[in-house]
Amino acid sequence: MYSFSDKLKDLNGAATREILKLTSRPDMISFAGGMPAAECLPREIIAGISAEVLSRPDASRLLQYGQTEGLPELNAELINYLASIGIKASTETVQVVSGGQQGLDLMCKAFINKGDVILVENPTYLAFLQIAKTYEAKVIGVNSGDDGLDLGDLEQKLKAHRPKLLYAVPTFSNPTGRTYPLENRKGIIELCKKYGTIIIEDDPYGRLRYTGEAVPLMKTLDDDGTVVYITSFSKTVAPSLRIALCCGPAEIIRKVSIGKQGADVQNPALCQMIMAEYLKRGHFLPVLQSNIEVYRARRDAFLKALDENMPKEVKYTRPDGGLFIWMELPEYIDAAALLPEALKKSVAYINGNEFYADGSGKNTLRLNFSNSDISRIQNGVKILSELFSTKIKEYKHG
Amino acid sequence: MYSFSDKLKDLNGAATREILKLTSRPDMISFAGGMPAAECLPREIIAGISAEVLSRPDASRLLQYGQTEGLPELNAELINYLASIGIKASTETVQVVSGGQQGLDLMCKAFINKGDVILVENPTYLAFLQIAKTYEAKVIGVNSGDDGLDLGDLEQKLKAHRPKLLYAVPTFSNPTGRTYPLENRKGIIELCKKYGTIIIEDDPYGRLRYTGEAVPLMKTLDDDGTVVYITSFSKTVAPSLRIALCCGPAEIIRKVSIGKQGADVQNPALCQMIMAEYLKRGHFLPVLQSNIEVYRARRDAFLKALDENMPKEVKYTRPDGGLFIWMELPEYIDAAALLPEALKKSVAYINGNEFYADGSGKNTLRLNFSNSDISRIQNGVKILSELFSTKIKEYKHG
Repeated sequence: MYSFSDKLKDLNGAATREILKLTSRPDMISFAGGMPAAECLPREIIAGISAEVLSRPDASRLLQYGQTEGLPELNAELINYLASIGIKASTETVQVVSGGQQGLDLMCKAFINKGDVILVENPTYLAFLQIAKTYEAKVIGVNSGDDGLDLGDLEQKLKAHRPKLLYAVPTFSNPTGRTYPLENRKGIIELCKKYGTIIIEDDPYGRLRYTGEAVPLMKTLDDDGTVVYITSFSKTVAPSLRIALCCGPAEIIRKVSIGKQGADVQNPALCQMIMAEYLKRGHFLPVLQSNIEVYRARRDAFLKALDENMPKEVKYTRPDGGLFIWMELPEYIDAAALLPEALKKSVAYINGNEFYADGSGKNTLRLNFSNSDISRIQNGVKILSELFSTKIKEYKHG
Repeated sequence: MYSFSDKLKDLNGAATREILKLTSRPDMISFAGGMPAAECLPREIIAGISAEVLSRPDASRLLQYGQTEGLPELNAELINYLASIGIKASTETVQVVSGGQQGLDLMCKAFINKGDVILVENPTYLAFLQIAKTYEAKVIGVNSGDDGLDLGDLEQKLKAHRPKLLYAVPTFSNPTGRTYPLENRKGIIELCKKYGTIIIEDDPYGRLRYTGEAVPLMKTLDDDGTVVYITSFSKTVAPSLRIALCCGPAEIIRKVSIGKQGADVQNPALCQMIMAEYLKRGHFLPVLQSNIEVYRARRDAFLKALDENMPKEVKYTRPDGGLFIWMELPEYIDAAALLPEALKKSVAYINGNEFYADGSGKNTLRLNFSNSDISRIQNGVKILSELFSTKIKEYKHG
């Protein structure tokens, strides 16, 4: 009846809404979402900070309009935070955004005209595919594997399409959990520089490392303004504070800031001040460390259960960090078609084709291990293993 | 150097940034912004609610991801709030947004393709003009005056351009402070219905009525889904909670919701819960009433100072509510050109041409009376009166 824009015409929000519905059923073992564990959220610390900052004599400032760029106290702490992970930043190169999601949206707003090309890893973060759709971009997947992006495929696509942006989650990727090795990162930057393509380094999970050695951030390998770094405190502190940052060349950050001015003026100052104090008082590292212990145990339990129960035809990643395990079923199994059966047995996952720009990957799925305790992980993996075993046997004997 | 999108190419954020810079100088008498008075912000109430909701056993829910549509407790209170102002709503017809600004942005996202026409009042809210620019809409102004929109001009432009949207601030308009009379509202709805144009009724100021009788909201006069109502608690409770709502036909609200999912996933749950409790505990009306007393006194003082000091060649509106007085200088005076002189004398305003889709209105300016105490209002008006008198005399004798 209504004449909606082309931007939203084909978006019905089904996939992500389905996730939320699934995870809200208490009997459901949900490997579907990407949420931190409720018990890892620093509720008491945040309650204490909130009470204190709202009782200060100048607290009405936290209820009043403020500058789009961010609360000055938070900007200062974000610059310190970035320094702690090897990134040199200043007020001109950092913009506070409302979750990493808004950072991605504003980067598209700054660069994308209808029909412009964005390269993504294949598979990639499904919400980014949706954002790109709202900007009517043409999204093209670059082949990837355990060694990162396929540089040959990348160069061919850079040359053929002259994309404005490359979107990458190089550390503990969503959905695969994989990390691009150092040499791959350098190769990507070099190629993108050569073809004038800006790299969005989306890094929501990088601090959640359970094993192995850290790989330098792409932003720290960049010397001339090719990489825009986006990170969020949603996975390491609390999603609902909606505090994330964009860090890049001043000229780009200025555009992101202007885009935010139109989009929502500013983040709530109370949430910004809570995060500023959280960082300033040194809560970040101890809470992170204790959460890493929880998530490492869950990842280990998940992999152990998979190793013990999954039929050998099923392959999966062994991530050193992040929140996800990526699974490949035999090619004759369609993960989306199987999902209703899994849900009937009270286990949820996301079928992997949602993460492919071209809708391929029908035999893949994403499994989240952060938001289920170990006994639910063990039960859920057993249920999925039986389901997949049955299907494999049916295929072999049918 | 970078190849930015056409959306943001021409936006440099100058006007609004200038405002913020001006208002932050303590010696500046700023009539430029549109902020509530700091002393009107209910800091203690909000501090109390925040402490209480964060100490509840299930408070970690306020830090976790939640649904895009809004925190269920807030949605329920918003539906009650809407009922209290005569609007029947349900969960399917209300979306929580991050300030009215995000509501406007998401409505454009839902409807506007590049080149689509949006009608606006001439003059209109300057940030809406910027938002429309980021969607590459063609914005056309409709003539208006003390009796609302010129219905003849409106129909001619509806017929000629078949616009997707009409953007209106019918109650205590920004920038003019004017209110469309009932008959004018009915006429606008009838015409927009006839031509299939959706009306955005932006109502940030409607509750701030100091004198006169309330006029029914356009949304309450609409029977078939022509009006989408947007209101915000920024001016009546606290801007930095960033809580506003969009209320319209379920089909439109669903698109707004999908648009928000991509834009920033959700509003911070803590801010949503604070607002839900604020409404539930009945703080809205008493705080509003006490703020109305403050603002009425300021408006009265402003008008009195204008009446006593302004040369008779200068015209201005006498608004029954809202935050702004609109001024027309003689046509030979350029308000933008005079601003630097006013600033040198430590008084700030916004030159009115910023509010015109076509950049006209060079002899107009907007004056905010909510955020200066009475003695600053008296001083500021005297300074402006002298400045304008001098310029008028110079012109007459030059």
